[in-house]
Amino acid sequence: MEAVIDIQINKVETSKLVNFSLENIPFGKYFTDHMLEADFEDGEWKNVEIKPYQPILFEPSMAALHYGQAIFEGIKAYKNEQGEAYIFRPHDNFERFNISAARMCMPTVPEEIFMEGLRQLVKLDSNWIPQMDNHSLYIRPVMFATDTVLGVRPSDNYKFMILLSPSGPYYTTPMKIYVEEKYTRAVAGGVGFSKNAGNYAVSMIAAKEAKAKGYDQVLWTDAFEHKWFQEVGMMNVFFVIDGVAITPTLDEGTILNGVTRRTLITLLEEKGIQVQQRKISIDEVIAAYKAGTLQEVFGSGTAASVAPLKALGYRDVHIEFDLNNATIANYLANQYKDVIYNRVPDNNGWLYKL
Amino acid sequence: MEAVIDIQINKVETSKLVNFSLENIPFGKYFTDHMLEADFEDGEWKNVEIKPYQPILFEPSMAALHYGQAIFEGIKAYKNEQGEAYIFRPHDNFERFNISAARMCMPTVPEEIFMEGLRQLVKLDSNWIPQMDNHSLYIRPVMFATDTVLGVRPSDNYKFMILLSPSGPYYTTPMKIYVEEKYTRAVAGGVGFSKNAGNYAVSMIAAKEAKAKGYDQVLWTDAFEHKWFQEVGMMNVFFVIDGVAITPTLDEGTILNGVTRRTLITLLEEKGIQVQQRKISIDEVIAAYKAGTLQEVFGSGTAASVAPLKALGYRDVHIEFDLNNATIANYLANQYKDVIYNRVPDNNGWLYKL
Repeated sequence: MEAVIDIQINKVETSKLVNFSLENIPFGKYFTDHMLEADFEDGEWKNVEIKPYQPILFEPSMAALHYGQAIFEGIKAYKNEQGEAYIFRPHDNFERFNISAARMCMPTVPEEIFMEGLRQLVKLDSNWIPQMDNHSLYIRPVMFATDTVLGVRPSDNYKFMILLSPSGPYYTTPMKIYVEEKYTRAVAGGVGFSKNAGNYAVSMIAAKEAKAKGYDQVLWTDAFEHKWFQEVGMMNVFFVIDGVAITPTLDEGTILNGVTRRTLITLLEEKGIQVQQRKISIDEVIAAYKAGTLQEVFGSGTAASVAPLKALGYRDVHIEFDLNNATIANYLANQYKDVIYNRVPDNNGWLYKL
Repeated sequence: MEAVIDIQINKVETSKLVNFSLENIPFGKYFTDHMLEADFEDGEWKNVEIKPYQPILFEPSMAALHYGQAIFEGIKAYKNEQGEAYIFRPHDNFERFNISAARMCMPTVPEEIFMEGLRQLVKLDSNWIPQMDNHSLYIRPVMFATDTVLGVRPSDNYKFMILLSPSGPYYTTPMKIYVEEKYTRAVAGGVGFSKNAGNYAVSMIAAKEAKAKGYDQVLWTDAFEHKWFQEVGMMNVFFVIDGVAITPTLDEGTILNGVTRRTLITLLEEKGIQVQQRKISIDEVIAAYKAGTLQEVFGSGTAASVAPLKALGYRDVHIEFDLNNATIANYLANQYKDVIYNRVPDNNGWLYKL
């Protein structure tokens, strides 16, 4: 793709990479040499610049900190065994980013800034892409409101940024999950489908209380009856019952439309495993458990990839899963790895070359 | 109150006030000479400092921008005709601030930092308190997460700030309001009662669509049936039906526990007007309108004080109110002014002297 916008590039004099090992690093802690920055002012995007990663000056009255107009995405870049770098399905994230923006009354980011900026930035810092299993270059596009007047209304000014963080695995051990019936993450008419900052702050107390019960995270239920499943922690969720993979439908707008969710559905279907996108309740899952047909539960997300559940708690019921028998999750985890590390041909056109 | 913490004070050399008029100013646009800043690090609050108002350096990965842990308060300081400065009910806001903090998994701010910091800061900048009708010094305490690691979890580090903005009226004309049935602001188990940044971003699209219909803001309804009233725009709401003032109950945790709401309830009761805190639906309001007993609707909030509605729209129904007949709202608006400008004795102990 030809750049139709002018992206100013100011490179670092010396890369931090000379003193940095890309092996066995934590998730999201370190950042590469460069970042992308662009400003929305007077109704248009301007000052698109790739520059050394650095702190920013902001006014204490900056709107995003007071009124929450802030959205983000999570994307990953990888290298194959030949050392070729690529980004996984970034256009899907680009589209979701602008869906989030519209819901939060924020301007959309043009494709030529998001995609071309992403491509040039990752290419410039491609030496930072780890070439190690379960590692990747995590990409964080983010946009936030920068007006400095107190008073609740959509901001006139915004900043769009792309940050790059070479990262190891998000979860290092399988999760124990508790079914949440007290707190609510999202409801129809709200912002559950939008990857906005507030959704995450809202959810933290539930995870905290689940930890106090000996679990790692919660399985979110609907706002009305607290029985219909939504997401698990910050991931989409799949239940395998009697050989069929079931994942909650996106219809109500309460669930994030996950790129990994979409990828896994394709991989399941390619394998000939039946997938159902529909409402699924705790009652159905408990009944399946009692009938011996509940086989696996796993989460899916860009950060965590495929995350099989070790245990599921609901009131006084505690279900343990033997992960050696998680046939489908283990198949998917391996197949997903083969896809993202390009060990199999990219038949679906998911790898965006730099 | 004696300061038990050490608040470092660094004053400006020259006040901006010499070139600034406090008359007929907009809301929230200008800030005084000083601000308060404090940091939560290693499990404790430190670096409590009053310093010149200035921009702050932040990392682009600052947690508040990505995961939304950010809360605030709105408080006002006034001067009476004798030129004595005071803050209106700040302890109520202090308590609510920490309720918001707990819901968002943020640390509470100790009373000696919040209240004593507030007192010293407002005292230092008390020349900035406008002495004009409908004007005040608007006080904005705010706390946000400052961790720099990507990964969703409660931040370990936070910044607490207090900003001061000499301000004119928030609304300059009476509002036309549309009953919202599509979008949802809050639901039980969520964060409607917590003054966090995300609540405001969530609500903007509804106001935008109401504006396209010729209204200024929306009257929020419940998430389930979209018939039970919650708030109006960013304010609490009161309906006067047959001489009784009715305001939605706080029981479900979907509504902000307004300090002005509480103040108006007291003023109404002192006047001998019956107040009911209970569920109230659009059906009841439309029925009252048709029976000729719907007399007034008004909003209440720190920023807007008492805000009578000029019109209320619901589907195809458009109700106009003659504000000359808004007896109770007009009484309250005047009485509230007498209280905040200390033209009547402070019998309830609401004025916090500096």
